[in-house]
Amino acid sequence: MTDKLVSKEIHLTHRPKGFVTEQDFEIVQVELPELREGEILVRNIWMSVDPHMRIFLAQGTRSTSVYKLNKPLSGGCVGQIIASKSDKFKEGDFVLADNGWREYWISNDNTNNNNNVTVIDPKIGPIQHFLGLLGITGFTAYIGLFKIGGLREGIDTVFVSAAAGGVGSVACQIAKIKACHVVGSAGTEDKVKWLLDDVKIDYAFNYKRLDESIIAHSTTDEHNDISSELKRACPNGIDLYFDNVGGKHLEAAIDNMSLFGRIVLCGATSVYDSIGTNANSSLPSGPSNLSLAISNRLRLQGFVYSDHNNIIPNFQQSMSNWIREDKISLKETIYDGLESAPKAFLGLFKGENIGRTLVRIGSKI
Amino acid sequence: MTDKLVSKEIHLTHRPKGFVTEQDFEIVQVELPELREGEILVRNIWMSVDPHMRIFLAQGTRSTSVYKLNKPLSGGCVGQIIASKSDKFKEGDFVLADNGWREYWISNDNTNNNNNVTVIDPKIGPIQHFLGLLGITGFTAYIGLFKIGGLREGIDTVFVSAAAGGVGSVACQIAKIKACHVVGSAGTEDKVKWLLDDVKIDYAFNYKRLDESIIAHSTTDEHNDISSELKRACPNGIDLYFDNVGGKHLEAAIDNMSLFGRIVLCGATSVYDSIGTNANSSLPSGPSNLSLAISNRLRLQGFVYSDHNNIIPNFQQSMSNWIREDKISLKETIYDGLESAPKAFLGLFKGENIGRTLVRIGSKI
Repeated sequence: MTDKLVSKEIHLTHRPKGFVTEQDFEIVQVELPELREGEILVRNIWMSVDPHMRIFLAQGTRSTSVYKLNKPLSGGCVGQIIASKSDKFKEGDFVLADNGWREYWISNDNTNNNNNVTVIDPKIGPIQHFLGLLGITGFTAYIGLFKIGGLREGIDTVFVSAAAGGVGSVACQIAKIKACHVVGSAGTEDKVKWLLDDVKIDYAFNYKRLDESIIAHSTTDEHNDISSELKRACPNGIDLYFDNVGGKHLEAAIDNMSLFGRIVLCGATSVYDSIGTNANSSLPSGPSNLSLAISNRLRLQGFVYSDHNNIIPNFQQSMSNWIREDKISLKETIYDGLESAPKAFLGLFKGENIGRTLVRIGSKI
Repeated sequence: MTDKLVSKEIHLTHRPKGFVTEQDFEIVQVELPELREGEILVRNIWMSVDPHMRIFLAQGTRSTSVYKLNKPLSGGCVGQIIASKSDKFKEGDFVLADNGWREYWISNDNTNNNNNVTVIDPKIGPIQHFLGLLGITGFTAYIGLFKIGGLREGIDTVFVSAAAGGVGSVACQIAKIKACHVVGSAGTEDKVKWLLDDVKIDYAFNYKRLDESIIAHSTTDEHNDISSELKRACPNGIDLYFDNVGGKHLEAAIDNMSLFGRIVLCGATSVYDSIGTNANSSLPSGPSNLSLAISNRLRLQGFVYSDHNNIIPNFQQSMSNWIREDKISLKETIYDGLESAPKAFLGLFKGENIGRTLVRIGSKI
């Protein structure tokens, strides 16, 4: 460790207004300091990109923290310890942390400083599963369906938007395991085919094709067509809507909810690009039919997975069983090399990625 | 009973599109049939008008029933039995029912047909209280705060819109009894003064005056000014928003909710006039900031009081105690004569009425 180690990092250089571009990021080389007592040096192998990261690119509101400019972004990563001056971690251990977007990182072993470095067992499954089925993707779907959505086994009709995404496709599979009627929306024909043939949900539709048919028929109301599609797919109403999209999807779902329906507000990719623009007036308008929540006794609830860490053991137990019994899987869209991380992130919003989006940064020792 | 009794009734003649007018109603004289075995004849003394009745004037959606055209409307009433051929009810008894908007009515005593005729005890309080504090007004406020809103005694900052209305003013008082910080909005200076001086909430503002100051300052965004007012009134955020209004009030509240805040969707008077117009596109746009519900972990929940009849005993116990201890009261705006019922109803939307709006139809025996 006498020669200084050089690590590449992806920094945020501009807060995007509207669409995010690759020009909002830059790749920077930094020299890492000498390892001190109690510290570990980790080489990242995998990192994940998630739609909700879009929120943290913008200027923060009262309650959201944001990524700092000209610093590496943060986000889920799995790496391997390549040097340790800590009694608590040993060289070769695989760890899960929130230090994505960089090749190498140093952390101390003081668990009081919220650095959230967790040793993972590679025997449980491929290490990248800890960023997917066994990580926040799976956990978010699990919390959303059970704790926030109160999924009723064998009873509920469940609608999942962005159903071919990481969280969406896991939510679909869990709802199927629980014998629910599952309907999903996605933005390409390939994704719809994958949802029907591989994920095996009951009904899937391409909401962008609806857009095209709208243009073809000279109507202007996208909402009404998602709504009509949902009416066909769920003639008795939607009991649980797992919302990854917001906007017009949310409005169309509200039109079709059953009495006492639950709406799980997990993501709002359709409005993320408005975040950081100046006035509320530039945000897309919200659901105009929200007063139906009164007559139909609906519950809409937002959540963030990290508030629910107390039920991680239940989650891990259930998910490990489902994986072992081959009842659940997670398709991965993999980008190679740290340099491709911004492209991987942008792919989430361009509808290019199926399933979980990962970046392969390095290799094992 | 050999001479046929003639009763006046208010019928709905048109389904309003946009603003309701008195021309949507007419007064009709009907002959009542002879009383048969098992039936009672009731003379109404009081009836109430409620904002949510607006919903039932329009063409129904899948899940809402509507008032029939050219029939008497329904709604809360208290009357007295003036003839009885039933063993279960006796002449002189006061009863609570859903047969408002008419002078006289006949019901049989078969409790299986959901006619919901309940004998009330006039010793408990003035009989019209069964349409107010001890009736659906009080019950709606109680359910909304405790069962839907999870009110935390001594902790919550509570915002109530239409705070000078029947449900609103009771919700304010219950929240004060539970030692919460209470903020209310209303649409006239008189109502604001009444809320501060008599209801004794902590902060009240006139949202229509904000409108005027907006015009004066040439800005166009009403939303931002309700939002700014709430920021001043609730610097640490709103924990529970009791929404009687919807629209821009709801949007402004979402801007100011605390983490894990709860929004009780009780009414949406600001959008009722759009109900029954043709397209969703003519509805006012919904809250553009709903994605804050994710990052701030908000819950929005609609409810209808009649789903919660199992806790009526708890409610009546608490409310009777509060009335006896002089901790709660309900201002009444009274209209005289059945003919004035449409005017009383319209007054709810013109902002003319304070507290509970009642129509005095007849007198006791």
